[in-house]
Amino acid sequence: MNTQRTLLLSALVALSGHASIAAAADGAAPSPWRTIDPNNTLYMELTGGRVIIELAPQFAPNHVANIKALVRAKYFDQQRINRVQDNFVTQWGDSNFAGPLGEAKASLPGEFTRSAVGLPFDPLPDPDTYAPQTGFAAGFPAARESATGQAWAVHCYGMVGVGRGNESDSGSGTELYAVNGQAPRQLDRNITIVGRVVQGMDLLASLPRGKGSMGFYENPSQHVVIKTVRIAADLPESERTPLEAMRTDTPEFAKNIESRRNRQDEWYKVPAGKIDVCNVPLPVRRIRAK
Amino acid sequence: MNTQRTLLLSALVALSGHASIAAAADGAAPSPWRTIDPNNTLYMELTGGRVIIELAPQFAPNHVANIKALVRAKYFDQQRINRVQDNFVTQWGDSNFAGPLGEAKASLPGEFTRSAVGLPFDPLPDPDTYAPQTGFAAGFPAARESATGQAWAVHCYGMVGVGRGNESDSGSGTELYAVNGQAPRQLDRNITIVGRVVQGMDLLASLPRGKGSMGFYENPSQHVVIKTVRIAADLPESERTPLEAMRTDTPEFAKNIESRRNRQDEWYKVPAGKIDVCNVPLPVRRIRAK
Repeated sequence: MNTQRTLLLSALVALSGHASIAAAADGAAPSPWRTIDPNNTLYMELTGGRVIIELAPQFAPNHVANIKALVRAKYFDQQRINRVQDNFVTQWGDSNFAGPLGEAKASLPGEFTRSAVGLPFDPLPDPDTYAPQTGFAAGFPAARESATGQAWAVHCYGMVGVGRGNESDSGSGTELYAVNGQAPRQLDRNITIVGRVVQGMDLLASLPRGKGSMGFYENPSQHVVIKTVRIAADLPESERTPLEAMRTDTPEFAKNIESRRNRQDEWYKVPAGKIDVCNVPLPVRRIRAK
Repeated sequence: MNTQRTLLLSALVALSGHASIAAAADGAAPSPWRTIDPNNTLYMELTGGRVIIELAPQFAPNHVANIKALVRAKYFDQQRINRVQDNFVTQWGDSNFAGPLGEAKASLPGEFTRSAVGLPFDPLPDPDTYAPQTGFAAGFPAARESATGQAWAVHCYGMVGVGRGNESDSGSGTELYAVNGQAPRQLDRNITIVGRVVQGMDLLASLPRGKGSMGFYENPSQHVVIKTVRIAADLPESERTPLEAMRTDTPEFAKNIESRRNRQDEWYKVPAGKIDVCNVPLPVRRIRAK
């Protein structure tokens, strides 16, 4: 780390307070796992199985609320996956679809970045091509910069964003996409990220690519039907898939990162010594019955 | 670019001579396109269509020669795609398969890096997490460092490498993989890269993910059969797919990079101003009949 980065880091730590460390009030060893909040979890049911999305209200509170309203209005039921562009995005919903909006708005001001103040942030030590600093915040891969005091979720594989037209306020969550290839980091700060796929990304990534412009399917018969989208908390417990994610503000996660930065297994001859924020695995597992 | 990088760049330019610029001997405007050499092009025929791989003898001459010998021995015919790990690799061939090796060797010393000397290299101006410098060499995304005087092809989406066991010399090309997700740059300098998929990567990326450990298919019935693999030059012209790629040492390619670094279309609100080597498109098109 060179001097410039050290100074920047100090400035950012001053900006946001300290990165929080999970601690148990009763003095027991804190758990490095957190339950993924059923109130911020979407289940998208496809013929192939369940895709589970963790929403990110810390980064896009208005869009997350709007998407939950759309889900409760059953806007997404029988909607389609209509675009699969290789090494870019799998996209569903349709901004031209006259579906039931319920309490949701048809457009919202973009939530492309947020203030870095009040967002605990655990930085990575390595340089990034696109941002002055990357790391993890609220369990999501993120970036921040002291020049603007802004932070944002970054476009890694599996991240979910809000399609929009040319106007910044032309999206609302009626059209969503998940990244299915190399992180398209040029989208950072240009579009609203609302969450990430925590299970079932393979179902979205293994769909046939659309042959039309930008990967749109040319014929509606090729569309993949979405049976339903539901909020986990709205389903009876017996129909839920309870998941927990490793907290990104724990020593266990730091150890996880280090083991990937410098691979020690016998196969590796030259450990990288560095890691890109989008190459850090974010462990998720099913909660075992007590 | 800070001073350290400028110095490094100067050192590397001194190391490798100047990056070549395509020039026509007759004074006509040089073409920014190069024909992809049929002698270094593989056609892998799947039920879904043809996957076309451009080999990279500039980076792995021994492995490329060995793979061509395997192809000519029909080693890959009726072999299987037996591993599809989400956001990592699609892999085919089987090191345990007792197929015909012909003139090929069963193992070779790894070609993980090569000397940067004698390899014209067009650098990118932006910092990279994993390497001191990235750019393009011989049409492939690449990296180099002055400390060791070495260069290597980097693991971007669609790059093709040689599976190996724990020993550096345990690969030979009997087992190959293509990157199907976020660039696994930790593999750089640890494994031999032999080329890249220039057409049909969508066929490899849209396969169902294997449910076994590391994405291997659990049941051989799930394997995807490879009908044949052929060298383009070994087929009659009528059966070839003639392709040309944009030369990476041309002003046109530099313009292509700059248009991606700073997107000027109306949709973008905050041009990135930077680009990762794995986000630079490498234009490939079909050669039109004269």
